[in-house]
Amino acid sequence: MNEFDIIRDLFAPLSENAAGAFALRDDAALIDQGAYIVTKDMMIAGVHFRPKDPLDLVARKLIRVNLSDLAAKGAKPIGYFLACAWPQTIKPASVELFAAGLQEDQETYRIALFGGDTTAHAAKAAPLTLSATFFGAPPKQGMTLRSGAGAGDDLYVTGTIGDAGLGLKALSKEEKFSTVDKASLAGRYHLPEPRLSLGAAIAGLATAAIDVSDGLLADAGHLAAASGLKAEIDAAAMPLSAAAKGWVSAQEDPYDAIAELAAFGDDYEILFAAPQSMRRSVSVAAKASRTAVTRIGALSRGEGVSLIGADGDAIATGSHGYDHFKR
Amino acid sequence: MNEFDIIRDLFAPLSENAAGAFALRDDAALIDQGAYIVTKDMMIAGVHFRPKDPLDLVARKLIRVNLSDLAAKGAKPIGYFLACAWPQTIKPASVELFAAGLQEDQETYRIALFGGDTTAHAAKAAPLTLSATFFGAPPKQGMTLRSGAGAGDDLYVTGTIGDAGLGLKALSKEEKFSTVDKASLAGRYHLPEPRLSLGAAIAGLATAAIDVSDGLLADAGHLAAASGLKAEIDAAAMPLSAAAKGWVSAQEDPYDAIAELAAFGDDYEILFAAPQSMRRSVSVAAKASRTAVTRIGALSRGEGVSLIGADGDAIATGSHGYDHFKR
Repeated sequence: MNEFDIIRDLFAPLSENAAGAFALRDDAALIDQGAYIVTKDMMIAGVHFRPKDPLDLVARKLIRVNLSDLAAKGAKPIGYFLACAWPQTIKPASVELFAAGLQEDQETYRIALFGGDTTAHAAKAAPLTLSATFFGAPPKQGMTLRSGAGAGDDLYVTGTIGDAGLGLKALSKEEKFSTVDKASLAGRYHLPEPRLSLGAAIAGLATAAIDVSDGLLADAGHLAAASGLKAEIDAAAMPLSAAAKGWVSAQEDPYDAIAELAAFGDDYEILFAAPQSMRRSVSVAAKASRTAVTRIGALSRGEGVSLIGADGDAIATGSHGYDHFKR
Repeated sequence: MNEFDIIRDLFAPLSENAAGAFALRDDAALIDQGAYIVTKDMMIAGVHFRPKDPLDLVARKLIRVNLSDLAAKGAKPIGYFLACAWPQTIKPASVELFAAGLQEDQETYRIALFGGDTTAHAAKAAPLTLSATFFGAPPKQGMTLRSGAGAGDDLYVTGTIGDAGLGLKALSKEEKFSTVDKASLAGRYHLPEPRLSLGAAIAGLATAAIDVSDGLLADAGHLAAASGLKAEIDAAAMPLSAAAKGWVSAQEDPYDAIAELAAFGDDYEILFAAPQSMRRSVSVAAKASRTAVTRIGALSRGEGVSLIGADGDAIATGSHGYDHFKR
């Protein structure tokens, strides 16, 4: 297996539907349909995925976390560029598994590979490092920004919060779950669901949106800061899966447990703001896109983010998300 | 220093001239001027640069190797997306130095940062890993492809070949040079010159082009293969700097030495093909873009690539470039 075999045999087939990719035989690609929304996310073994995770799941997660960014912006995905820095010891079968994962999710999301770079680390034990640049077509209403929310706007989130974090705890045996719960939580960790239909449905309706990757509280903080506002989230309103509810009820203090779920990250749900007058439209958009949407709080004048408990007091404040430079 | 400080203080200023970058405060960027040529190159410490190289030079090399790809395609650079996986032990001053290098070359090449991802490795001793996605406007004649050359076309290369490889040998003390030669060769290794003016000037004139990153022979092989042809390069015609000429004359067999230079890589010159009838136009394009261009061989029916010595026999054949998966 050499670099060129990998590109020709494994990656070039992934560019089949991308005329501008020139079958990955050129040094650049051509994208020529007008305006694009572009996002770039990196994934590193030991940071964004477990070093032993099957590489088809890693490939699909790489696609999905990037699509999640596009979803929050209301974009329709078109394609992507991929750069891989493989460990020295990588086996051909692993690269094949990785490419098979890409193929599977390319079909699911109707996207194509347009180009990239295939390299290998020189340092021993250097981790698999993946970088993808995704692009999509903006919604006709324009890209939904992080900023743009107004004081008094409602805050909504899709799906359920905290499952991926619990999934990671289940996989690393930090917490015990029933077999069924473990499978469903691990699934949320490995394969997030980019909320593309909902993201498109709320374009022009949402005043601001962000995907929840760093943690609900952290990302609510990002959205609030970009809009120059303060976010308040009602802990009791936070949507939880059956497995997460079970976990919460087994903890000493349920509100502390909810605060923990709100800080985990890796949810890849969409958090968005919309004026109160739009509640009906939000509900229509949720139905039309078959996506669960929950109103969890509101934005107001001020700054920061608070998770509000039963007594109306904040049980958690500030930015609790993952910071790559603080360990 | 945390991830968000780095983005706000060091990287956001680099996006100043990119309205669609939203000051790096969003999860995606908007590029909306029509068609784009896109390229993505990764650089890893210990593979593409020396772990001790000053980070401003590494940043500028990252920009330049990507611009070199755009140059070969005839594109006018617009901007880029950047993802960094920093080592655990990185110091704020190093990230600042890196950003200063980006800033310097952004000004030189009038480009802007549009977005990206800032992460850190978890594994100890994992190397700095950089991934950049660059985009530019296609020339009005259309993107110059790797394929498209015809049998009988001339082969040309810009600048001089082998200097960056000798520079690396000088820096690693594998070879000794005079102080002046060492400085000039190391400069070629650290700071390649993307041939943007020449690349634009030959658009529509060149039938195929590629930038020389893997080595002259390897990249001539790529161009020839993409065009379904065979490349022959005249060793005596290969353009050499004064320092490289000195080195060649000190070797046992000068032709073997030239073959070594043709296999080094990291030159970031442009290799291109053009019909014989275009010789005058190529010379005009070279003059207009103030870029040295040398006719070094030709394409013919067949396959593979040969470096032809004084006696007309091949002194080196095949693909001698860097393969990340063969060490």
